[in-house]
Amino acid sequence: KILNEVIFFPSEMGCVEHLLGPSKLYPCFCALPHGVETSLSRLLRHLLSATSSLDLCVFAFSSIDLCRAVLALHKKGVIIRVLSDKDYIAITGSQIGYLRKAGICVRSDVGSVYMHHKFAVVDESLLITGSLNWTLTAVQGNMENLIVTMEPELVRPFIQEFNRLWEINDPA
Amino acid sequence: KILNEVIFFPSEMGCVEHLLGPSKLYPCFCALPHGVETSLSRLLRHLLSATSSLDLCVFAFSSIDLCRAVLALHKKGVIIRVLSDKDYIAITGSQIGYLRKAGICVRSDVGSVYMHHKFAVVDESLLITGSLNWTLTAVQGNMENLIVTMEPELVRPFIQEFNRLWEINDPA
Ligand SMILES: [Zn+2]
Ligand SMILES: [Zn+2]
Repeated sequence: KILNEVIFFPSEMGCVEHLLGPSKLYPCFCALPHGVETSLSRLLRHLLSATSSLDLCVFAFSSIDLCRAVLALHKKGVIIRVLSDKDYIAITGSQIGYLRKAGICVRSDVGSVYMHHKFAVVDESLLITGSLNWTLTAVQGNMENLIVTMEPELVRPFIQEFNRLWEINDPA
Repeated sequence: KILNEVIFFPSEMGCVEHLLGPSKLYPCFCALPHGVETSLSRLLRHLLSATSSLDLCVFAFSSIDLCRAVLALHKKGVIIRVLSDKDYIAITGSQIGYLRKAGICVRSDVGSVYMHHKFAVVDESLLITGSLNWTLTAVQGNMENLIVTMEPELVRPFIQEFNRLWEINDPA
């Protein structure tokens, strides 16, 4: 049976330190509810399931939780490629600089139009895509959707499109 | 076999009068290429396949071609419900007013956050969703994606979410 899941936002509030924190075994004393599954925790869990690669094509990237997840995967040795919109990278709160500083390969779209995608491909087999920009406002505020699927007919075109955009935005 | 299709944008340029025009049998003399399948024509074809209902949940709606498609379905007797973001409805170029004037039932999200969805459900069985706002810029300019699927595990949650948002935004 092929994984097909839909996640709606805004996410319920809930602590995600058990997924992202440095000491996952110790209890957290922050003010958020603990032990609750939320839209954000489901998204993080899918991202953190990566074992070999993560391709990220995101218009905006300012969510600190999502940035921590990507940095954690990078530390684990997962090969990460990030493609983002050049106009958005310069905006306050963008986490793209932190990814670059950590040694993650980031390319920015240099065209005159928006690179408006918001999708991720995990291990070349799991697609996460929808209306959700990778921002705090989108995760906690807006009404948004995400599809999570392993259906090859849906995943394959996104892999091809990522590779195409990655090549045409090669700065070399 | 279940329909699963991915459409990327920007759309190639191409005349869509054979899909939308009043006299589909006569040749069109406009300056656009004719007889070419484009991303926009594929999207229009899926929308125009509606025979009983079309539920539309769109942040922005300013594309004249997409508006013409919705008006054509309305004329044919397809039951149409449109849910849009209250902030966007007031913006120049919004087609929402034309839909209302034609007698289509439109509800606007009255919350303080963005209703950022961009999805359509055709005949309660076909889901069209992605990053694409229903604007000319998105269709002709941006890099965007749309998933078109009849997979029940993906379609069903969107139907439920549409009905939920429709009810909570009842102005009555
Ligand atoms: Zn906590
Ligand atoms: Zn023409």
